Amino acid sequence: MDKLNNLSERELFPKGVKLPNDHFTGRAWLSMLVEDDRIFNCPIGNVSFEPSARTNWHIHQGGQILLVTAGKGYYQEKGKKVQVIHKGDVVKIPSSVNHWHGASPDSWLVHIAIMPNSQKGPVEWLEPVTNEEYNVISG
Amino acid sequence: MDKLNNLSERELFPKGVKLPNDHFTGRAWLSMLVEDDRIFNCPIGNVSFEPSARTNWHIHQGGQILLVTAGKGYYQEKGKKVQVIHKGDVVKIPSSVNHWHGASPDSWLVHIAIMPNSQKGPVEWLEPVTNEEYNVISG
Repeated sequence: MDKLNNLSERELFPKGVKLPNDHFTGRAWLSMLVEDDRIFNCPIGNVSFEPSARTNWHIHQGGQILLVTAGKGYYQEKGKKVQVIHKGDVVKIPSSVNHWHGASPDSWLVHIAIMPNSQKGPVEWLEPVTNEEYNVISG
Repeated sequence: MDKLNNLSERELFPKGVKLPNDHFTGRAWLSMLVEDDRIFNCPIGNVSFEPSARTNWHIHQGGQILLVTAGKGYYQEKGKKVQVIHKGDVVKIPSSVNHWHGASPDSWLVHIAIMPNSQKGPVEWLEPVTNEEYNVISG
């Protein structure tokens, strides 16, 4: 399993600040690389999840693109099967699709999260991913 | 100096295809991570430059964001000083700004290039960066 400090040291971007648990299960960190503005309409963040940590279910009105830079994790769209994602994977999440992403139980996950078309509105955060939902793949 | 094969092996994304020299000086490679479409309005490419390779001067109508993932290079906006860029740097290039980017003479440069607001129009390619312009910093 990747250790916190080792993964941090190898990483491209700073781990940043620990995210509050309002919209996340487990511990996750965010380093904003590009703040939202009306010039780029494209906030970008680097997100690090410890093993088993994950987002709540959520929706981006302008879509989202994930570039996985380290580790292994999961991505799921509501009503579809969980997909396993690894370093080097690109995940394209269309607008208005309810989804979650996070680390697998045996690895950290680090991804760059790109939110294009941010002028269409903020992230809509929904309910947590339950252990039952999470364990479908990992259990 | 980074060697071609070593850098390739370490890299996050595939090096992709060699770019034609219409808009580049020296050898550069492109791997498209996200193709342009009207869902994301945000094509994304991974670009690798050998030492001294660089783009022509060019303009993005919707702006561009560079995430430097390996090596060392240069970024310059027309009429301003050249900036040195390294792994981990984020470069925000506003819309309609004439600029170029590329590797330093002693290192490869690899960056993710994000083109938000692509509905505003294609890249406008201009003249090559001359050796005189390039050597201002490296000579």
